[in-house]
Amino acid sequence: YQQEVIEKGSGHKIATLQLNGTIQNTSQSSLLNEGYNHDRFLKKLEHVGEDQSVDGIILRLNTPGGGVVESDEIHDEIVEIQEDHDKPVYVSMGNTTASGGYYISASADKIVAHPATLTGSIGVIMQSINVSELADDLGVNVNTIKSGKYKDIMSETRKMTDDERDILQSMVDDMYDDFVQVIVDGRDMSESKVRDLGDGRVYTGEQAADNGLVDELGDFDDTTAMMEDDYDWSNAQVVKYKSNTGVNNMLGGWAQ
Amino acid sequence: YQQEVIEKGSGHKIATLQLNGTIQNTSQSSLLNEGYNHDRFLKKLEHVGEDQSVDGIILRLNTPGGGVVESDEIHDEIVEIQEDHDKPVYVSMGNTTASGGYYISASADKIVAHPATLTGSIGVIMQSINVSELADDLGVNVNTIKSGKYKDIMSETRKMTDDERDILQSMVDDMYDDFVQVIVDGRDMSESKVRDLGDGRVYTGEQAADNGLVDELGDFDDTTAMMEDDYDWSNAQVVKYKSNTGVNNMLGGWAQ
Amino acid sequence: YQQEVIEKGSGHKIATLQLNGTIQNTSQSSLLNEGYNHDRFLKKLEHVGEDQSVDGIILRLNTPGGGVVESDEIHDEIVEIQEDHDKPVYVSMGNTTASGGYYISASADKIVAHPATLTGSIGVIMQSINVSELADDLGVNVNTIKSGKYKDIMSETRKMTDDERDILQSMVDDMYDDFVQVIVDGRDMSESKVRDLGDGRVYTGEQAADNGLVDELGDFDDTTAMMEDDYDWSNAQVVKYKSNTGVNNMLGGWAQ
Amino acid sequence: YQQEVIEKGSGHKIATLQLNGTIQNTSQSSLLNEGYNHDRFLKKLEHVGEDQSVDGIILRLNTPGGGVVESDEIHDEIVEIQEDHDKPVYVSMGNTTASGGYYISASADKIVAHPATLTGSIGVIMQSINVSELADDLGVNVNTIKSGKYKDIMSETRKMTDDERDILQSMVDDMYDDFVQVIVDGRDMSESKVRDLGDGRVYTGEQAADNGLVDELGDFDDTTAMMEDDYDWSNAQVVKYKSNTGVNNMLGGWAQ
Amino acid sequence: YQQEVIEKGSGHKIATLQLNGTIQNTSQSSLLNEGYNHDRFLKKLEHVGEDQSVDGIILRLNTPGGGVVESDEIHDEIVEIQEDHDKPVYVSMGNTTASGGYYISASADKIVAHPATLTGSIGVIMQSINVSELADDLGVNVNTIKSGKYKDIMSETRKMTDDERDILQSMVDDMYDDFVQVIVDGRDMSESKVRDLGDGRVYTGEQAADNGLVDELGDFDDTTAMMEDDYDWSNAQVVKYKSNTGVNNMLGGWAQ
Amino acid sequence: YQQEVIEKGSGHKIATLQLNGTIQNTSQSSLLNEGYNHDRFLKKLEHVGEDQSVDGIILRLNTPGGGVVESDEIHDEIVEIQEDHDKPVYVSMGNTTASGGYYISASADKIVAHPATLTGSIGVIMQSINVSELADDLGVNVNTIKSGKYKDIMSETRKMTDDERDILQSMVDDMYDDFVQVIVDGRDMSESKVRDLGDGRVYTGEQAADNGLVDELGDFDDTTAMMEDDYDWSNAQVVKYKSNTGVNNMLGGWAQ
Amino acid sequence: YQQEVIEKGSGHKIATLQLNGTIQNTSQSSLLNEGYNHDRFLKKLEHVGEDQSVDGIILRLNTPGGGVVESDEIHDEIVEIQEDHDKPVYVSMGNTTASGGYYISASADKIVAHPATLTGSIGVIMQSINVSELADDLGVNVNTIKSGKYKDIMSETRKMTDDERDILQSMVDDMYDDFVQVIVDGRDMSESKVRDLGDGRVYTGEQAADNGLVDELGDFDDTTAMMEDDYDWSNAQVVKYKSNTGVNNMLGGWAQ
Amino acid sequence: YQQEVIEKGSGHKIATLQLNGTIQNTSQSSLLNEGYNHDRFLKKLEHVGEDQSVDGIILRLNTPGGGVVESDEIHDEIVEIQEDHDKPVYVSMGNTTASGGYYISASADKIVAHPATLTGSIGVIMQSINVSELADDLGVNVNTIKSGKYKDIMSETRKMTDDERDILQSMVDDMYDDFVQVIVDGRDMSESKVRDLGDGRVYTGEQAADNGLVDELGDFDDTTAMMEDDYDWSNAQVVKYKSNTGVNNMLGGWAQ
Repeated sequence: YQQEVIEKGSGHKIATLQLNGTIQNTSQSSLLNEGYNHDRFLKKLEHVGEDQSVDGIILRLNTPGGGVVESDEIHDEIVEIQEDHDKPVYVSMGNTTASGGYYISASADKIVAHPATLTGSIGVIMQSINVSELADDLGVNVNTIKSGKYKDIMSETRKMTDDERDILQSMVDDMYDDFVQVIVDGRDMSESKVRDLGDGRVYTGEQAADNGLVDELGDFDDTTAMMEDDYDWSNAQVVKYKSNTGVNNMLGGWAQ
Repeated sequence: YQQEVIEKGSGHKIATLQLNGTIQNTSQSSLLNEGYNHDRFLKKLEHVGEDQSVDGIILRLNTPGGGVVESDEIHDEIVEIQEDHDKPVYVSMGNTTASGGYYISASADKIVAHPATLTGSIGVIMQSINVSELADDLGVNVNTIKSGKYKDIMSETRKMTDDERDILQSMVDDMYDDFVQVIVDGRDMSESKVRDLGDGRVYTGEQAADNGLVDELGDFDDTTAMMEDDYDWSNAQVVKYKSNTGVNNMLGGWAQ
Repeated sequence: YQQEVIEKGSGHKIATLQLNGTIQNTSQSSLLNEGYNHDRFLKKLEHVGEDQSVDGIILRLNTPGGGVVESDEIHDEIVEIQEDHDKPVYVSMGNTTASGGYYISASADKIVAHPATLTGSIGVIMQSINVSELADDLGVNVNTIKSGKYKDIMSETRKMTDDERDILQSMVDDMYDDFVQVIVDGRDMSESKVRDLGDGRVYTGEQAADNGLVDELGDFDDTTAMMEDDYDWSNAQVVKYKSNTGVNNMLGGWAQ
Repeated sequence: YQQEVIEKGSGHKIATLQLNGTIQNTSQSSLLNEGYNHDRFLKKLEHVGEDQSVDGIILRLNTPGGGVVESDEIHDEIVEIQEDHDKPVYVSMGNTTASGGYYISASADKIVAHPATLTGSIGVIMQSINVSELADDLGVNVNTIKSGKYKDIMSETRKMTDDERDILQSMVDDMYDDFVQVIVDGRDMSESKVRDLGDGRVYTGEQAADNGLVDELGDFDDTTAMMEDDYDWSNAQVVKYKSNTGVNNMLGGWAQ
Repeated sequence: YQQEVIEKGSGHKIATLQLNGTIQNTSQSSLLNEGYNHDRFLKKLEHVGEDQSVDGIILRLNTPGGGVVESDEIHDEIVEIQEDHDKPVYVSMGNTTASGGYYISASADKIVAHPATLTGSIGVIMQSINVSELADDLGVNVNTIKSGKYKDIMSETRKMTDDERDILQSMVDDMYDDFVQVIVDGRDMSESKVRDLGDGRVYTGEQAADNGLVDELGDFDDTTAMMEDDYDWSNAQVVKYKSNTGVNNMLGGWAQ
Repeated sequence: YQQEVIEKGSGHKIATLQLNGTIQNTSQSSLLNEGYNHDRFLKKLEHVGEDQSVDGIILRLNTPGGGVVESDEIHDEIVEIQEDHDKPVYVSMGNTTASGGYYISASADKIVAHPATLTGSIGVIMQSINVSELADDLGVNVNTIKSGKYKDIMSETRKMTDDERDILQSMVDDMYDDFVQVIVDGRDMSESKVRDLGDGRVYTGEQAADNGLVDELGDFDDTTAMMEDDYDWSNAQVVKYKSNTGVNNMLGGWAQ
Repeated sequence: YQQEVIEKGSGHKIATLQLNGTIQNTSQSSLLNEGYNHDRFLKKLEHVGEDQSVDGIILRLNTPGGGVVESDEIHDEIVEIQEDHDKPVYVSMGNTTASGGYYISASADKIVAHPATLTGSIGVIMQSINVSELADDLGVNVNTIKSGKYKDIMSETRKMTDDERDILQSMVDDMYDDFVQVIVDGRDMSESKVRDLGDGRVYTGEQAADNGLVDELGDFDDTTAMMEDDYDWSNAQVVKYKSNTGVNNMLGGWAQ
Repeated sequence: YQQEVIEKGSGHKIATLQLNGTIQNTSQSSLLNEGYNHDRFLKKLEHVGEDQSVDGIILRLNTPGGGVVESDEIHDEIVEIQEDHDKPVYVSMGNTTASGGYYISASADKIVAHPATLTGSIGVIMQSINVSELADDLGVNVNTIKSGKYKDIMSETRKMTDDERDILQSMVDDMYDDFVQVIVDGRDMSESKVRDLGDGRVYTGEQAADNGLVDELGDFDDTTAMMEDDYDWSNAQVVKYKSNTGVNNMLGGWAQ
């Protein structure tokens, strides 16, 4: 990994990683896509956790959220770094760190948000579009031959039944319970309070600092300062770990 | 095949293969298409099965399903590896492993899902669009001259008859019976239970662990840990087998 | 032709050819078109038939059908190979081998399908779109000056007459009779049974095995195994004949 | 011209030429257009006729027809080859050889069709679209200033008069008479029979063999066999004359 | 100019030029446009007229017509060649030689058409589209500030007045008179007969041969034969003059 | 400038320049635009005027007109050439030389038109589209905040007032007066006659020769002949001045 | 800067700069955009002002106007050149020099227009589109959460209030007052007269010469002649300053 | 960083940075995007603040605003430069510096605007589009399965509830309070006055100078002059700091 020195220093070393965009593991491996790449991010995070020259880690997040599985994989990696390598992990929230972005943050040793950060949106949602009336109006319909009555449960061309709604709601509830538990554990908050705050609403960073979802207010520089302060690492070096871009991979691939 | 070392180790060797996207054998052999390629995946799987340096195999699946024939061909290859080469095959489910994805998984020695994995959707479905009313409204119709009354059975421009629905339903039922049998055999479950669970509905990984469709909850790293544990392979090496991309093939083709 | 070794072996040699896509002789000779090319397929099939190092041939089909003339030309080439060169020709059906795909298969020494293969669809169909009402509604019409009353028999802008329907039906019936005869001869089935099964309906491979349209169930590997078995060719070598792609031709053409 | 040997042989030499697509002399000389090129085809046909090493010619046709003048020019060239160079010319019909394609075939020494070939469609047709009502509805009209009342005889924006229809019909009838005469002469059929069969309807090759429009049923290989047989040319060599493509011409043009 | 030998010969030399497409002097000088180029055609025609090695000229026309000025410029060049250089000019009509195409042909020493050539269409036409009602319906109108009442005589957004129609009709009539005179002079026909035939209607070549607009029926080869015959030039050499294409010009321009 | 010799000769030299397209000074300096370029044309005209080897100039025009300012700048340059360098300037009209094209021609020493040239259209016009009703119907309107009541005088979204119409009409009248004066001076015609002929109507070249707007009828060759004749320059050399195209400029620009 | 010599001469030197297009400082720094570039124009103007070899400057304008700030920045630069470097600045108006184009011209030592130049349009305008009714009809609306009642003052989806109209009108009035003052100062005209003439209406150059907004009538060559005359610079050299185009910058940028 | 010298000088050095476009931290790191890049701007500003050769800084702003977090980060950096490095920071407003652009300016030591600059627009706004009625009319709806009632608070397909409006309003109010405080601190203005002026309305630079939001009127050159004057830095050197463009980065990235 390329390392860019953000603040020169000596003694301790703080590593920072940026996560920008929707946290999704898209199966398409496009050569030109420069957006969030789940596999690469996870690998980089693991690498930094194991790198013995690194004393502390700061994640800089700018994300509206994403998939539950992906968010949880990052969350678990953070916990592992904290437990196995005994390194502090701080989160610095950018203009947006909501939903899956908060899921990732929950177990951080300290969450620092800007007063105007958009955060919260704790919860799980599934949506499907239904065009059955439009299709009817147009005179278009769909013949469906299926083996079980729920095989087309997310069908766009017929009304959803109550049964189906219950099946999907139970899935959402399961996932929400896990989300709540992650916050209860990470933030040392009572479950009832988490469920209260976690009704899907959005908060400013300032509101989140008031209600306990966030520890401190500040920007990225403040976050590094706090870590230096909290651990008495005066004059620490701050480095940014960059991924090799797809373009470099492409050239590498051609050179073989 | 290129091999990327994911976890260093010594002694035993675990090979991992990723399957991303819809499991379909598209006849179009596009040079630039980087999606799922059935022939290449099958060949790679066979190669890994026969490779004597490999002790165990983990499939990492991220797929909404696909064709029955293609799913079955992968399934059969897995069974062959288990029987002929006596190697354990584990499945690690990503954010989605439904329908044909579950078909593939059925015979695995262990299925590991994330609590929030979307799985299930067991069953078979055929759909055709019907625009006869729309065509009527527009004043467009189609002259059909045919040799047998079912020759245009999937016609988009006339209503499907009851006879035709029966013909297609019998095909779906046949295929569903095979799907059920694959699960009965692979999971050692009673047929009645499989038919019960296999009504097409989707499950979270957690629900699937409760009802027996999945063995354990965990992510990819947990899966490798389980295999090491189950077979007492301490400190095994984990490698990822990559396909040569179409781009490389293209260059290779030009170099001849 | 490039040959790719699929299964190493010694002694006998089995050649395999893939046919993917619609069986049509498009007159457009596009440099970049990678789809089915009728002339190239026929030539390759003839070449393999005459190649004295080849002992048996397996066609791997993945096609919804195509033109009657083109299907018949392939069928005739297969018969010639069987008769003149005395080599067995087996067919291995992929996910779809219907209509013209079955026509090709009819004379094979053995037809092997996957239980979930979509096959059947035996018959002939002609379709033309008619937009006369739409044109009327829009206030558009077409002046037609013609020499004979049927010169615009497939006209999109007037209703088809009963006479015209009879003319076209008689053509479809003629072609259907030939299709039936090809199956009667190839499968050694009574004409009445062929007409019964050949009402245009589709079958799963399993249903086709029951009703006699298919000999055995299995995938491609099973098919090669059957040929080795049937002819006592233990440890035969299996090679795949590839066409030179249009891209190579293009470069070749430029090098002259 | 490049010659591709299709069947090796010694002694006599049969040349074959393919005609694919619509028989039209488009004035646009596109560098990239790989379709039918009238001037090039005529020149190649003349060349083959004059080539003293060639004993017989087979035209392989795959065409829905085209312009009367172009069809007649090919027809005349065939007659000239038959008369001046005393060489037999056979026609082998592909999946479609209708209208102008039959015109070309009429004087052949032998016409061989596949049973499923689409042929016939003997006749002449002129069509023009009329959007006067649509224009009226939209509130669009066209000011026409002209010198003679028929100067806009094919106008898309006014109704065709009876006079105009008569003028055009007389042209179509003239051309049809010539078409009929070409068949009368070439097939040695009575005019009344030609007019009877030539009412524009389409035939299968089989029907055409019954009614005399075609001499024999068979595919391309059968056609070469018939010529060898008819003229006692055992073991004749069969070569295909290819045009230099536009791409080669382009390069040639650049090299000057 | 490049010369392509069409018929080898010795003694006299006949030059042939092709005119394909609409006879228009488009002001756009596109590098890639391969269509009719008026300036280049005129220059080539003049060159051939002055070339002392050329004994006779045959124009091969394939054109629906074009501008009156352009047609007249070609016509004048032909007359000049006939008068100043005393060379015969014959016209061979392809599938279409109408309107301006006939204007060019009028002074030829001999006009040879194919029986199915589309010719005639003698006359002049001006058309303009009028969308005033449509604009009204849409609620769009145009403010026009002008110096004279006819300054927007061809306006698309108001009705044409009777005065305006008279002005334009008088222009069309003037041009038509010239067209008629060109035919009277070139064909040695009475003016009344020319006006009779020249009412804008189209003729087949055969009809035109009957009414005297064409001298002989035949194709291009027949035309060269007639010229050889008429002037007792046995075994004349026939060469085709080709233009340098725009592509060559482009390269030439770059090389300077 | 590149010079192309059109007619070889000795002694005097006549230079010819082509003006094709709309006479407009577009501010966009596109590298690829090959149309009319005002600055380049003016410079070339000035260069030819000053070139001492040139005895006379012929402008070949093919233009529907253009801007008044641009037309006047060319007109003034012509007058300057006539007065300062005492060289005759003739105009040869192509298929269209109307409006601004006539403005340019007005001061020529001789105007030669083809009988079918479209000329006249003397006058000035301003047009603006008004979509206020359409906007109203759609429910769209525009808020306008302005400093003076005429600041949006050409607004597309409100009706034009009578005041505004008067303002614009007075501008058009001013420009028209100048146009008239240019013709009065150049053609030595009475103002009343110019205003009579200059009511915007179009003329054929023949009509324009009758009413005095044009001096002679003839084509480009006739024009050069007239100049040779009028000035007793027997056997003059005729050369065409070409602009360097944008492509050459582009390359030149890169070479610096 | 590249200098192109327009008129050779000796002694004094007059520099000319062209301003084509809308006077706007677009923030987008496109490599390929060849239009008006505000920063580059200002810098070039400043450079010419400071260049000691330049005695006088002529701006050639072809612009419908632009932003007030940008126009004023150019205006100020001109005043600075006049005052600090004591050089005369003349303006030569092309076919259009209106609004901001006049603002720039106001302080010139002499304004020279063509009689048909479109000028005037003195004033300031703000426009915003309002689609609230259309949105209503479509069933679309916008939720707005804002901190102050004017925060969405230019909203496209609600009606503008009277208050808001007053706020914007006062801004326009302010800017208009400055525009007026610039003309009062530059043209030494009474404010009442400027306000009278500056009601937004457009003028021809001739009208502007009458009412005093322009000093003289003439084209670019006349303008240079006037400056030579006014300052007794006989035989001055006239050079045009060109910007380096974006293409050159791009290449330059790459070469660093 | 590249430095371009704008004004030569000796002694003190003033650094200037341009901010063009919307102040937004887009997560997409496009190679070709030349617009505003938040990370690069912040880094450049920090660099200039720390550069000991720089005595004073002028920000040239041309922006309609942007995100609150991003604006605040720039604001904080400016305050840090003022406090830690004791350097004056002046702001020069271009044609637009509104909303977030004013936020940035608030703490500057001096704000200089052009009289016609568009500024103000102080406040915060959130907008979401609502298409529920349109969807209803079309017969389209959305199935939503969610864990908490506010999880789809910004839904485009249902009406916003009063509760939700309150939640969002409280966020906007929070952010607005911070905005007000920044101005109170930076401009030394009473809170009541800031709230009065900060009702979202826009001002001209002149109006802003009157009400105290801006200190002085002038353009960029005036701003540098003021700084030289205010600090007695006669003959200071003014340099512009440029970012390395994405293109350079790209090339740099390839060179590694």
